[in-house]
Amino acid sequence: MAAQWAKTVRALADGREIRYYDSELRERSATDTRDLAPVESRSHTTLDALTGEWITHATHRQTRTFLPSTDLCPLCPSVSGRATEIPEPDYEVVVFDNRFSAFAGGPGHCDVVCFTSAHDTTFAALGLARARMVVDVWADRTADLTARDGVAQVFCFENHGEEIGVTLSHPHGQIYAYPFITPRAEKILVSADRHRRETGRDLFEDVLARERDDENRIVATNDEWLAFVPVAARWPFEVQLFPRRRVADIPDLDDSQRDGFADLYLDMLQRFAALFDESMPYIAAWNQAPATHRDAWWLHMQLFSIRRAPGKLKYLAGSESAMGAFINDTDPAAVAAQLRAAR
Amino acid sequence: MAAQWAKTVRALADGREIRYYDSELRERSATDTRDLAPVESRSHTTLDALTGEWITHATHRQTRTFLPSTDLCPLCPSVSGRATEIPEPDYEVVVFDNRFSAFAGGPGHCDVVCFTSAHDTTFAALGLARARMVVDVWADRTADLTARDGVAQVFCFENHGEEIGVTLSHPHGQIYAYPFITPRAEKILVSADRHRRETGRDLFEDVLARERDDENRIVATNDEWLAFVPVAARWPFEVQLFPRRRVADIPDLDDSQRDGFADLYLDMLQRFAALFDESMPYIAAWNQAPATHRDAWWLHMQLFSIRRAPGKLKYLAGSESAMGAFINDTDPAAVAAQLRAAR
Repeated sequence: MAAQWAKTVRALADGREIRYYDSELRERSATDTRDLAPVESRSHTTLDALTGEWITHATHRQTRTFLPSTDLCPLCPSVSGRATEIPEPDYEVVVFDNRFSAFAGGPGHCDVVCFTSAHDTTFAALGLARARMVVDVWADRTADLTARDGVAQVFCFENHGEEIGVTLSHPHGQIYAYPFITPRAEKILVSADRHRRETGRDLFEDVLARERDDENRIVATNDEWLAFVPVAARWPFEVQLFPRRRVADIPDLDDSQRDGFADLYLDMLQRFAALFDESMPYIAAWNQAPATHRDAWWLHMQLFSIRRAPGKLKYLAGSESAMGAFINDTDPAAVAAQLRAAR
Repeated sequence: MAAQWAKTVRALADGREIRYYDSELRERSATDTRDLAPVESRSHTTLDALTGEWITHATHRQTRTFLPSTDLCPLCPSVSGRATEIPEPDYEVVVFDNRFSAFAGGPGHCDVVCFTSAHDTTFAALGLARARMVVDVWADRTADLTARDGVAQVFCFENHGEEIGVTLSHPHGQIYAYPFITPRAEKILVSADRHRRETGRDLFEDVLARERDDENRIVATNDEWLAFVPVAARWPFEVQLFPRRRVADIPDLDDSQRDGFADLYLDMLQRFAALFDESMPYIAAWNQAPATHRDAWWLHMQLFSIRRAPGKLKYLAGSESAMGAFINDTDPAAVAAQLRAAR
């Protein structure tokens, strides 16, 4: 199906933008009645000379909202007498500038993406039409942010679950527009460059061919997408989703690919949720092309959990947190089999 | 003071080695009476072709001991009727092969280092003589492991606190002998090589000169060591300890440097513990030279905590865990001031 939605851009009380995405044109004229202090901007990025990585210091975030009770949720629609981040009394999907941006005052940018106005649900339960609409919203925001001066890479993601520190349970994701190429993307670009020099071939093509050929680790597929546990999975439960036809980023996905993603992604989230009789925290991370390296990239999503077994979480301790060396207690093929059997 | 200790090597019931380090020669002849199944070896390392990093899969570790009650602690000395990992009825410092090695069956190796037989204490409370002895033990084990075929880098570290997933509260650390150069070390080597090419100078010298000159971020020093919050700190509370005189690894430290380290490190741990009225989890991570790059290295320790404030932990969510881009909510100079005022 082709994208069909209307976008209305409004301002919040402190000048931040909010964008309403609606499946049909709606009047979105509610005013933010809150008395908000201007957004503070005290973040800056510093090069870690030893590792060559950029570190962002954003000290104003220490005071950000932390696990509010449901009736104080800032991501629910506003009701009479209680104004939230969304002035309207209802919404479908909204994206607003994060008040606690990691990149305040610099060329970077942080969005909050609310997937639904319903507080007590999850992405896995959104349904196909809404999930498909979220893909369009990611595409729209990515295109907008990529065009800004100083933005090097746009990262759409969802952190899900208190176990990984999510402070608001309302179904939402985030978008970071980094003023630098992220360390993961840098490493991939270096690998791809070396692979090209050494073999004359494209790294992504070779990696995907290898993953596609090992049926033991494939979880599910459709006409447009593959979902597999990578041979070098670093998380206890990890799936990567790749489009069969190469694109650089979400805006490049055509309608058929967007439909296919929504379908397979919901399937994966539902499998994750069905694995254990307890909550399954996860991180869903879009790997989009850095702005300067579109031709070298292949869009993909990493979906992974730190839950390694019922009652047990994977912690990043010395080996991972200090040295970056991941020790994974699960076997990729066994995880794929567990996920195929889940639901 | 010069190193003075005796080492006795014995075998555990399943063939693993245990090494007793004693400040004076002691008879260490107790036999491991347990009926232990042979150690399983099912780990292997896989190259993540996209990132160029080695991932270790160690599936046998899923069953490892998880938060036992104090009277079942496997790191306490054995008592009549209850045999632990240490057959002797007392010890000073012991190092034994980890039954749940991340590198079982390969060229890598995992040690467990018990700092004291006392269950209810911490490294911060060991006292100077014992801390100094632990430095010698790290040096002895590093020299032994570095000499083994296939070992690329030896990593001495301590994970401290349930908040980061420590499953045994008895004061202990670990040593990993990696069969590959860790991602952090790889990145540093790449940076150092580029710095040499671009400037003709040594990266470590330049970094250390810059850190030494910014008094705002120095926490404490002595004749041999500096402890500072790095300008690009990625953790809420992070200190790096560098020897003033360059060495490649712990075995290279002379007596004066070892004394100086024990003194300053205890001071840092005590400052960490005094910061808040609640437990301070930490990771202490020795960055030693990869075996093949001794001349390019400068030994240092990273000491950091994921506690960012009372009641609040830093979680590694999408930006850090997926993209490797660290967002730190604290200001390095402010952290240094807090640490200088602590104790």
